[in-house]
Amino acid sequence: MSTLRAVLLDLGGVFYEADRPIPGATEALARLRESGLPLRFVTNTTRQSRAALLRELAGRGLAIAQDELFTPATAARDLLVGRGLRPLLLIHPDLAPDFAGLDTAEPNAVVVGDAGEHFRYATLNQAFRLVHGGAPLFALGRNRYFQEADGLSLDAGPFVAALEYASGQTAELLGKPAPAIFRAALASTGCAPADAVMIGDDVDSDVNGAIDAGLRGILVNTGKYRPGDESRLKPGGVVVNDIGAATTVALR
Amino acid sequence: MSTLRAVLLDLGGVFYEADRPIPGATEALARLRESGLPLRFVTNTTRQSRAALLRELAGRGLAIAQDELFTPATAARDLLVGRGLRPLLLIHPDLAPDFAGLDTAEPNAVVVGDAGEHFRYATLNQAFRLVHGGAPLFALGRNRYFQEADGLSLDAGPFVAALEYASGQTAELLGKPAPAIFRAALASTGCAPADAVMIGDDVDSDVNGAIDAGLRGILVNTGKYRPGDESRLKPGGVVVNDIGAATTVALR
Repeated sequence: MSTLRAVLLDLGGVFYEADRPIPGATEALARLRESGLPLRFVTNTTRQSRAALLRELAGRGLAIAQDELFTPATAARDLLVGRGLRPLLLIHPDLAPDFAGLDTAEPNAVVVGDAGEHFRYATLNQAFRLVHGGAPLFALGRNRYFQEADGLSLDAGPFVAALEYASGQTAELLGKPAPAIFRAALASTGCAPADAVMIGDDVDSDVNGAIDAGLRGILVNTGKYRPGDESRLKPGGVVVNDIGAATTVALR
Repeated sequence: MSTLRAVLLDLGGVFYEADRPIPGATEALARLRESGLPLRFVTNTTRQSRAALLRELAGRGLAIAQDELFTPATAARDLLVGRGLRPLLLIHPDLAPDFAGLDTAEPNAVVVGDAGEHFRYATLNQAFRLVHGGAPLFALGRNRYFQEADGLSLDAGPFVAALEYASGQTAELLGKPAPAIFRAALASTGCAPADAVMIGDDVDSDVNGAIDAGLRGILVNTGKYRPGDESRLKPGGVVVNDIGAATTVALR
């Protein structure tokens, strides 16, 4: 990979699993830093602000700068600012800091995240009326559900589906595997997609998503990886054991 | 139509529009009563109990017996009782009387209506967990939205779509145009579908739905009928001016 000019990386399942670091992850990050290549961290987290996530990562020994971290919320914010849109935000309050300072008066766009118990009919209805009237609908995610202590719970996807069904409009997905978030991360490096690689544990969201956006992709066999996932890998994708091996392959 | 043995009729748009009766409707109902044929009234109303609707109809001069009126809620109740199911009810409180007395402890089925502002995340999540675990999902309707004084509002359909998306299951529709409600109304007359006719103003829900269930269908050009609707009419459907003409054709 002689023309490698940027490295994009997923976080959960690549650097750590639940509360423990993945062996070799700290050393791999150090080697990537030593390479001098720009690094960008691309995660689908939507229940933590970027600031809160950076603090958590620092606590895990992962020193990452604010400008290196890309989430669906940062992609949404960039897009709203770029298009001069005023959002109605159906998001979890913990994510609100990422949208602080945006003009939300008389909204002309809708952003849906995993608001959980903060989803209310009145707000969903306001969102529907806006989208039915032509306002763009942005989805921070399309996941069906997530695991909570007492069982599975509805994620953002079902509420995006509800608004799409009601309005007849289609949401623009901002998280992985949609190309927007990979392109936003790359744009901040000035690097072309073909000169970048994405390393992740999710064959669909991370690796195939990146390949669709024109990057190379490396699938690690940690985190949510399950044997057989590589059968879905798109042409050009590479499979390795873990982030240590991925770093070696990327920097070769 | 020499073998006609039962007449099914929609209400809104056939007998009245908003607050005014449709000319000739009272006389048509009198002629239908004089024929001695069993009459059944099949409506998709889901924000009024059967008792409240009967009172409203009486106030409009339409004397209809409780056993003649079929709504998605009556279809749901029959079905729940018939299958021995205990429902979690996501419905408008005004509809609750139609489900009074049913066992709802430890629910093993989900019924979704147009609960409006009574939709809450916690209840939707409970419904999702039940359906994801295999409980059947029943939809009183699939409408996208309805008109309120201050604009359009989310109907039951989007919330049914949300639960279907999250669970991967498909809801069973109980309102028109699903065959269940036509069959339930017919079953109460002992009449075969081919010996019955349905009269309505909605080409899809009333007329084509009835034809799909094996009945004959007559489309009236009142209520929500719009010129061109007859182009969607299925073979066997007939178009007439209003309920007066429909009665003449049916009793011919």
